[in-house]
Amino acid sequence: MPDISPDYRLHLPQPFTLASGAVLPALEIGYATYGTLDAARSNAVLVCHALTGNQHVAGVDPRTGKPGWWTRMVGPGKPIDPARHFVVCANVLGGCSGTTGPTSRDPATGAAYGMGFPVITIRDMVTAQAALIDHFGIDTLAVVGGSMGGMQALDWAVAFPERVRAVVAIATAARHSAQNIAFHEVGRQAIMADPAWAGGAYPPGTQPSAGLSVARMAAHITYLSEAGLTEKFGRRLQDRDAVSFGFDADFQVESYLRHQGLSFTERFDANSYLYITRAMDYFDLAAPFDGRLAAAFAGTRARFAVVSFTSDWLYPTAESRRIVHALNAAGAAVSFVELDSPFGHDAFLLDAPNLNRVVDGFLQASV
Amino acid sequence: MPDISPDYRLHLPQPFTLASGAVLPALEIGYATYGTLDAARSNAVLVCHALTGNQHVAGVDPRTGKPGWWTRMVGPGKPIDPARHFVVCANVLGGCSGTTGPTSRDPATGAAYGMGFPVITIRDMVTAQAALIDHFGIDTLAVVGGSMGGMQALDWAVAFPERVRAVVAIATAARHSAQNIAFHEVGRQAIMADPAWAGGAYPPGTQPSAGLSVARMAAHITYLSEAGLTEKFGRRLQDRDAVSFGFDADFQVESYLRHQGLSFTERFDANSYLYITRAMDYFDLAAPFDGRLAAAFAGTRARFAVVSFTSDWLYPTAESRRIVHALNAAGAAVSFVELDSPFGHDAFLLDAPNLNRVVDGFLQASV
Repeated sequence: MPDISPDYRLHLPQPFTLASGAVLPALEIGYATYGTLDAARSNAVLVCHALTGNQHVAGVDPRTGKPGWWTRMVGPGKPIDPARHFVVCANVLGGCSGTTGPTSRDPATGAAYGMGFPVITIRDMVTAQAALIDHFGIDTLAVVGGSMGGMQALDWAVAFPERVRAVVAIATAARHSAQNIAFHEVGRQAIMADPAWAGGAYPPGTQPSAGLSVARMAAHITYLSEAGLTEKFGRRLQDRDAVSFGFDADFQVESYLRHQGLSFTERFDANSYLYITRAMDYFDLAAPFDGRLAAAFAGTRARFAVVSFTSDWLYPTAESRRIVHALNAAGAAVSFVELDSPFGHDAFLLDAPNLNRVVDGFLQASV
Repeated sequence: MPDISPDYRLHLPQPFTLASGAVLPALEIGYATYGTLDAARSNAVLVCHALTGNQHVAGVDPRTGKPGWWTRMVGPGKPIDPARHFVVCANVLGGCSGTTGPTSRDPATGAAYGMGFPVITIRDMVTAQAALIDHFGIDTLAVVGGSMGGMQALDWAVAFPERVRAVVAIATAARHSAQNIAFHEVGRQAIMADPAWAGGAYPPGTQPSAGLSVARMAAHITYLSEAGLTEKFGRRLQDRDAVSFGFDADFQVESYLRHQGLSFTERFDANSYLYITRAMDYFDLAAPFDGRLAAAFAGTRARFAVVSFTSDWLYPTAESRRIVHALNAAGAAVSFVELDSPFGHDAFLLDAPNLNRVVDGFLQASV
């Protein structure tokens, strides 16, 4: 019986300055840890979550009663193992699971920030995580993440080149592509089109559920592959022998998508979705270096493992190769593997023995 | 100066029975013709339009004042040439450009059908077109179309195997895939989530514009390729030197998509969008033949030209190959070409000399 994941809070009362120049008066970080920091403070592994994840990477999520989102990677006998590692996972800045975000109370108004929350970046998320790592007195660490978590892992190596010993970046990219931005914009417009969004000022306990559900449905398609959808659903009908000649969910894939959309609205905040997708769109590691990605990594001392999946069309292998080429040009130690998978982008979240072998081998040699 | 496309109506007062068994009390068909039917009535080319097209394939669209949607293919000196061909294009059943659809008046209520309109299929569209072709006294013909137009062209050969001499099916499929259905379902849910949709009973002159716009934005991404979006927009900013740290359209691709969504709502009806996407989802030529596509084509006498585009991920080349293999198995004459294009599914609508050469050569030999 796995343990309930702990649900800690760190309150940092000092002002927190964002990449935009805006200042948050204070910072609250929701986080979980697993395992024990060793005497040398040398066994820390920071796991960074993706767009809709949270700090409960392992054990049982205390709010849902379900397994944490990456129990196939983090836990006893797994590549990231509390028996060896001090595992830290924090809800990202802008999130809705304990860390300061648009649902937090704005001390200036006494109400939730809503759209008064400042726009954040991946760098801001990383800087907030660094404050948590500082709180533990940890100097150097390994950083691991998939998708948006991989963006944070890469950005850690750029922002804190002397602190990061190892980076595992899975199914990710060093910048958001035009197509990535386009899909996010569809989701944001779906949320903003919902009158219940109310300019972001929806009352606590309510949600623009219809819009958020549509946003999630559109995004969810991008997490799966065409082949995976065909294998899983094809044109199979849902609980019927023939089409209904109507607009019910005749097809299993429709029923599945509707369920994904609706259940998402029960666990995620619409404004958080706006802010976090925006942070991803703004992500372009090479931008401050005139587009030269290798320059971004110039000072890094980390070893890197970069992993992509054959059927991931959201962050395709070409984006991983771009990272690897830049790391090579920067003289960094990097191993790259493209794993065969039919499950699209979601492959990084699924039980994948070959992914576990890669991460296990890399961390054994690095941490 | 090209001519204004004619905007004809054919009223067929007899009841029209649909694939579902539902009966429309009468049928109105909005159509355009170009050129002259020869004495042998042997030079007819029916052009079938795609999801959001209309009957104004050539000349100037009388409602928008802009060129018809396929002037690069149909017109003087083009592969489909009114100087040689009697070109017919009809607004599809369920459409909103003159043919009976959800915006038409339901004689039973005196108001627009709205969601009281029966669900239709691609076969119903084809059967309605056949009524128009019968009206001209045309026995045999060539049928040409891309995307949903290609579905109709293929279905013509299945429904009327003795009447179709030639089929040109471009950037299409013999069935809708799970991913195709999924994207359509997102669009439908976006429309239905808009309170202005009002269960389909929105007053004439109004629209669930916000929902329809989101639907169009999501669909539009599927019409373009990742590479095409990168080439056209990349991460370039819209009329600014730096990101705004806000939710305006910072990126050109956002501005472009918003424009596509909004302008669409000025020319297309939301309920028509629901019905036509549903017809596409239901399309599976092999279904009545236990999944054997070759059996669907068993009786055909037509010659076929099947064309796909390398970067079309909506109806990828694999779907065209499936059609070609079935036609081969059925003993039909078929030529297949995959054209190199970076423009994704939209390539069939764009100026593409190689596509024109294929269609020109095929029609010269067939019609």
